[in-house]
Amino acid sequence: MIDLVEPLLGGDRRALARLLTAVENEAAGIESALAALYPHTGHAWVIGLTGSPGSGKSSLVTALAKQYRAQGETVGIIAVDPTSPFTGGAILGDRIRMRDLSGDRGVFIRSMATRGSLGGLSRATRDAIRVLDAAGFDRVLVETVGAGQSEVDIVRAAYTTVVIEAPGMGDDVQAIKAGILEIADVLVVNKADRPGADNTVRGLRAMLEMGHPASREQLVRHHGQLIAVETPTRSGDERLWLPPVVRTVAIEDKGIEEVMQAIEAHRAFLNQDGRMTTLERQHIEIELHNRLREALMMRLLRTLPVASVESIVNQVQQRTLDPQGAVEQLLEIQATTVAK
Amino acid sequence: MIDLVEPLLGGDRRALARLLTAVENEAAGIESALAALYPHTGHAWVIGLTGSPGSGKSSLVTALAKQYRAQGETVGIIAVDPTSPFTGGAILGDRIRMRDLSGDRGVFIRSMATRGSLGGLSRATRDAIRVLDAAGFDRVLVETVGAGQSEVDIVRAAYTTVVIEAPGMGDDVQAIKAGILEIADVLVVNKADRPGADNTVRGLRAMLEMGHPASREQLVRHHGQLIAVETPTRSGDERLWLPPVVRTVAIEDKGIEEVMQAIEAHRAFLNQDGRMTTLERQHIEIELHNRLREALMMRLLRTLPVASVESIVNQVQQRTLDPQGAVEQLLEIQATTVAK
Repeated sequence: MIDLVEPLLGGDRRALARLLTAVENEAAGIESALAALYPHTGHAWVIGLTGSPGSGKSSLVTALAKQYRAQGETVGIIAVDPTSPFTGGAILGDRIRMRDLSGDRGVFIRSMATRGSLGGLSRATRDAIRVLDAAGFDRVLVETVGAGQSEVDIVRAAYTTVVIEAPGMGDDVQAIKAGILEIADVLVVNKADRPGADNTVRGLRAMLEMGHPASREQLVRHHGQLIAVETPTRSGDERLWLPPVVRTVAIEDKGIEEVMQAIEAHRAFLNQDGRMTTLERQHIEIELHNRLREALMMRLLRTLPVASVESIVNQVQQRTLDPQGAVEQLLEIQATTVAK
Repeated sequence: MIDLVEPLLGGDRRALARLLTAVENEAAGIESALAALYPHTGHAWVIGLTGSPGSGKSSLVTALAKQYRAQGETVGIIAVDPTSPFTGGAILGDRIRMRDLSGDRGVFIRSMATRGSLGGLSRATRDAIRVLDAAGFDRVLVETVGAGQSEVDIVRAAYTTVVIEAPGMGDDVQAIKAGILEIADVLVVNKADRPGADNTVRGLRAMLEMGHPASREQLVRHHGQLIAVETPTRSGDERLWLPPVVRTVAIEDKGIEEVMQAIEAHRAFLNQDGRMTTLERQHIEIELHNRLREALMMRLLRTLPVASVESIVNQVQQRTLDPQGAVEQLLEIQATTVAK
């Protein structure tokens, strides 16, 4: 795997494809390849794009990619589907819409679907971003459906997050509930030629202004989670970014430049006052935290004899042992096993 | 804290209130009290109720509680709000709607809001259920707004999950996205006297029938996660339960008996063929898994010197160390520190 790193850095598209597949399959040797390419990351501007099904997310991604290409930038696209494996058809349809981009060596598209867990998917996405970044793409667009925790995780790997809505989907209320507004740096009302677009824009603006202090506080809290598990700490810096609301008709390439301008404005905002350094640090802390949690749990499960786990679960079910007591016993068994 | 257990088991309402507060505040000594009352749990039938804001969830909970009381059963209610601390007003409103129940010693209501993390809330909810169960309540109703991961966690502590919808909220599509249908054992269309109720019922039925094999498989996969982290395993048992759709007008107490019948039918279903034993075991495995992960991470954070963490995060940010390498170094530091 490690022998693919030099070709990747040199622009070899086959090496890129093979490394992305290895990331997805968690292939042996991928960790050392990722370690070798890590020093070459940090060039790409990573943009997360999320929104409900039907909001025209893929059309917007396609239109953005075309526009970035027109101004000479290269674009890597990761389309993430964190929902059930049963939505294969929808993914295919989306990919077909992206065919405008095929044949252009300056664009590389990769779909990633859930195999195992959300945790695994968000890790694979983060690694895939790094592979595209090291391969030299100027922009990495990460597209995901808005489905709760998953897009929040993925957003934590992006620098600018674009949330896409469409008129008349009754999304406004739902969006708040799902915490989507809290993660938006740029809001796009796509299909803005449809009836109700004005209402959607007005609704989003009102909610943004109303919810601003609160949602900012939540954002800080989210990011403030850092490496200390579940102990929200307030970060001192004030975020004063109020997400702009942009109208687009992506399939007609309307409004795309405005979206790009909004993204650039946000990038400029982050590049002031050390905000980018802080954001990057928060991303790293969150990632290390997740990886540590995973590694610790894997190590525990490797150590614990299955029979002991079985017996302890049985005791809890028979109510002769309480759950916290069970946890203490399991940790004790691990300590003893390791000491041997 | 432990001295409250005997009074609790004897029906003392003050001991009950104090223990619930201790659970919420993670007060010192609460673990030993929970351990002492654990053998006295397993009597209550735990019902989870979830739905979008505006679906009339609290009214339904109130109507159900009244009806259970009318047939002589005691009812404990936990109203969980996993959304931001800024929704205090809404909670208050809901609680006011429950005033019909006040003054009845056979009912006990407790609200729980997010303080720190979702993980903490789902643990506190689970413990609160046990306190009410040990106190002898026949039914424990756990009400939560449908907001993604949170209600899935909480549902994993319930035996029967009721999902509440209302006509004309555009919820049908959103519900699927949020995976809500996948967790429903009983579906209620509340406010069924409103226009569009027939459509909502039809829509839900169609989705249930269409999505049935898929959603069941997902459910098994969810539950199949068990103690082995993030490695979904298929459980062999076939779930053949198709959630009934019940119409209610909760504020007029209409349709409530039908909901109760649906819950009883589901209870009877679980009590066949060892399904209840399997479900309880899955709940225990999930809980132990979550507690272990938390305990391991807490232990790690206690062990690691802050300066080492700082230095390693810095190296990752400067790209002189890759994330996986950082994790290995941190685990190594822990091992060395513990060995000393």
